[in-house]
Amino acid sequence: MSTREQIIETTSHLLEQQGYYATGLNQIVQESGAPKGSLYYYFPQGKEELTAEAIDRSAREFTRIIETELARYDDPAETIYQFMQGLAEHAQASDCRGGAPIATVALETAGHSERLTAACQAAYGRYQSAFAARFVASGFSEERAAQLATLIVAAIEGGMILSRTQRSAAPLQTIAGDLRDIVSFSYKR
Amino acid sequence: MSTREQIIETTSHLLEQQGYYATGLNQIVQESGAPKGSLYYYFPQGKEELTAEAIDRSAREFTRIIETELARYDDPAETIYQFMQGLAEHAQASDCRGGAPIATVALETAGHSERLTAACQAAYGRYQSAFAARFVASGFSEERAAQLATLIVAAIEGGMILSRTQRSAAPLQTIAGDLRDIVSFSYKR
Repeated sequence: MSTREQIIETTSHLLEQQGYYATGLNQIVQESGAPKGSLYYYFPQGKEELTAEAIDRSAREFTRIIETELARYDDPAETIYQFMQGLAEHAQASDCRGGAPIATVALETAGHSERLTAACQAAYGRYQSAFAARFVASGFSEERAAQLATLIVAAIEGGMILSRTQRSAAPLQTIAGDLRDIVSFSYKR
Repeated sequence: MSTREQIIETTSHLLEQQGYYATGLNQIVQESGAPKGSLYYYFPQGKEELTAEAIDRSAREFTRIIETELARYDDPAETIYQFMQGLAEHAQASDCRGGAPIATVALETAGHSERLTAACQAAYGRYQSAFAARFVASGFSEERAAQLATLIVAAIEGGMILSRTQRSAAPLQTIAGDLRDIVSFSYKR
């Protein structure tokens, strides 16, 4: 991995764990093992630029996961259920310490940084488009697909907050069942 | 309002707007108009203690709103729909700059502060209990009521993240319709 990539990956990880304001450039340099000075070489505009890149990276990665995982089952309700159960397992494996790489930065910086708000908006837009495309492929109308995608992205982000706060994957597992039902109910109408 | 109350209210507001790490004690003193020194007089353990109090205050306030608003309509699906529309209107009125007073602190401090994680856990527990009690009063089983309450609290928190990021109440309005449908669907089974 290049130094630039290593810096972005370390930043993504720290943002997920502790958010924007708690993450300092010194910590990023230290934990990434990047040579001092390389950070401003690659990211001359500093922390905001680097954070926007890290959000973009996290968003592309999670979007790929959505696309791959939602292709596993034909039935759209079953595939959402299995996807949510997968998120719950993943959260459990990390002792529910992570799992919402963008949410903290989104909340901290909304209304304070146009650049980061735009990066978070684009990130959530990617997730929503990936879910919506999967539903359209199963025959849902564009409008219904977009509505379901909004609910699912909100439920994931909120479910992660509850799981991290409770240190338990139980909220994500509960939500999995209800999202399956609402997709199934929409599908049959 | 007492000086102590004024300090807590200012802190709640700042936590909602910008989170835990961006909120300094100096800013709290300045914006609350409290005499210097009064902060450590009332909160000898400093920012963490004060934040726990502020979270508790926000949670009690929002729980009262849930209880009041959910009593307005007999039909549980309609009352959830109207409640969510009310949240959307409220978000719109503040230009979508606030609306999730606990979420930012919950994400920033989960795994970093036992005390604040416990305060956030208790806060979300209050919300969930208030929604669940409303469903039980309409004849839902305890188990089904608790499941719906988890989905709703997650959808509110996640919906607020999307609304703040998009500077639009549209995600909350979309979610309102789906939550109405899932409650209605559960009710008729």
